[in-house]
Amino acid sequence: EVCGYGRNAEALQWGLENEVLDTFFTDIQPAVENADLVFLAVPLGLMEPLLAEMKPFISEHTIITDGGSAKTMMLQAARNVFGEIPRNFIAGHPIAGKEVSGITAACKDLYVDHRVILTPVAENNPAAVELVKTIWAKMGADVEIMDAQYHDEVFAATSHLPHLLAFNLVDLLNDHPELGNVFKYTAGGFRDFTRIASSDATMWRDISLYNNQAIVKWLREYQASVGKLAELVEAKEGEKLFQLFSEAKEARDTHIVNK
Amino acid sequence: EVCGYGRNAEALQWGLENEVLDTFFTDIQPAVENADLVFLAVPLGLMEPLLAEMKPFISEHTIITDGGSAKTMMLQAARNVFGEIPRNFIAGHPIAGKEVSGITAACKDLYVDHRVILTPVAENNPAAVELVKTIWAKMGADVEIMDAQYHDEVFAATSHLPHLLAFNLVDLLNDHPELGNVFKYTAGGFRDFTRIASSDATMWRDISLYNNQAIVKWLREYQASVGKLAELVEAKEGEKLFQLFSEAKEARDTHIVNK
Repeated sequence: EVCGYGRNAEALQWGLENEVLDTFFTDIQPAVENADLVFLAVPLGLMEPLLAEMKPFISEHTIITDGGSAKTMMLQAARNVFGEIPRNFIAGHPIAGKEVSGITAACKDLYVDHRVILTPVAENNPAAVELVKTIWAKMGADVEIMDAQYHDEVFAATSHLPHLLAFNLVDLLNDHPELGNVFKYTAGGFRDFTRIASSDATMWRDISLYNNQAIVKWLREYQASVGKLAELVEAKEGEKLFQLFSEAKEARDTHIVNK
Repeated sequence: EVCGYGRNAEALQWGLENEVLDTFFTDIQPAVENADLVFLAVPLGLMEPLLAEMKPFISEHTIITDGGSAKTMMLQAARNVFGEIPRNFIAGHPIAGKEVSGITAACKDLYVDHRVILTPVAENNPAAVELVKTIWAKMGADVEIMDAQYHDEVFAATSHLPHLLAFNLVDLLNDHPELGNVFKYTAGGFRDFTRIASSDATMWRDISLYNNQAIVKWLREYQASVGKLAELVEAKEGEKLFQLFSEAKEARDTHIVNK
């Protein structure tokens, strides 16, 4: 039985009518007090307030997990609210974003053959970790256990960085003072490159704030690498450019499956 | 009647068998001497040598056009070979790239509803410009006339820059000394962002060399904007980050059609 909780009754009603939810509440107490498992799916900045809101009503037997894109901050949020990481609080991150969000973007096979990362800690109840793993596996996901800090570094590099770069490129070209509206001259390459720039602004503000250090580090590293690339182009280093492009193409063709 | 010319007889034979070509030659003289129109489709670095190779055999009545991604260099290549821009040399750029290349990537509706830019000059024969326009329009394209220098600026920003950024990101993360192989943790966002990093390395080396100044300028501009973004993230400027992401999202949702 899937019970929804949120502030927007209309959205929850949509979920009920479209078989995403079996019931819903806009009060937290009835939503969580008898739950076997609670899944937190809000922007990162709302995670800690939500845990605080739930705390008076939730049983220590209820398993709590989440879909947040940064994990050390989730562990810290749990510590801040509960004084320690609850035995049944299992932090997780399903890797299957889309540029659309909200309940109307629900998609029942979204996790089939997608990776889900769990970042359990020593304090966690192994049975709770197993249960969360099993639930994701039943949705078709490939579950992997990872250290929270390594997670945050990896996803700063592979997800947070490209999202920020895409937002940044669209912003740079938007009504450019020199060129005007250049979006009309773009084609499929630009459309795909910037698809993630259509993502939810609140979610990405929060990721920038809550996986802050790792993102700053990767933005700086990327910035430096663009500087090096500009130097190669400026010096017309054809040989080195060819090598860089070939190696990138080969790495992508080898590791990334086109769909 | 579509006649192919190239160095790779096997590829041309494939084209013949798959109805891309009606005939083909691996010698240039028979390929071009009676042609009504010649379409040049080679990496930018081969454009000028190809024009030089054709020159002894081509009639002044034959229209020459091309699919190169940089246009001032094409005009210069024509000047270098013919001493001036031939009346019937009409530079063009169809905006419908794919990350795949070669004759086996032929696709008969590739240009339907796609833009084709022509950059004719004062010396050109207006009837030749009209004919090239008509041919593209018959393939379903939306033809637009543009100044060659403005073209090179616009496409440095909207096409060349994102391609180089995508190659660069894949290169940065490829076997990263600190993180190892992180590509396995990527999902659809990264796949789409880096799709253009699977493009042909020779083509992109040549674009970097032949639209050189505009690309360097945009790489530097983007580099500076990543620096500003890193500062906003570092200072945890939530308000400003939200504004930047929202404006980018809105611009993209307004101007770019998802497919």
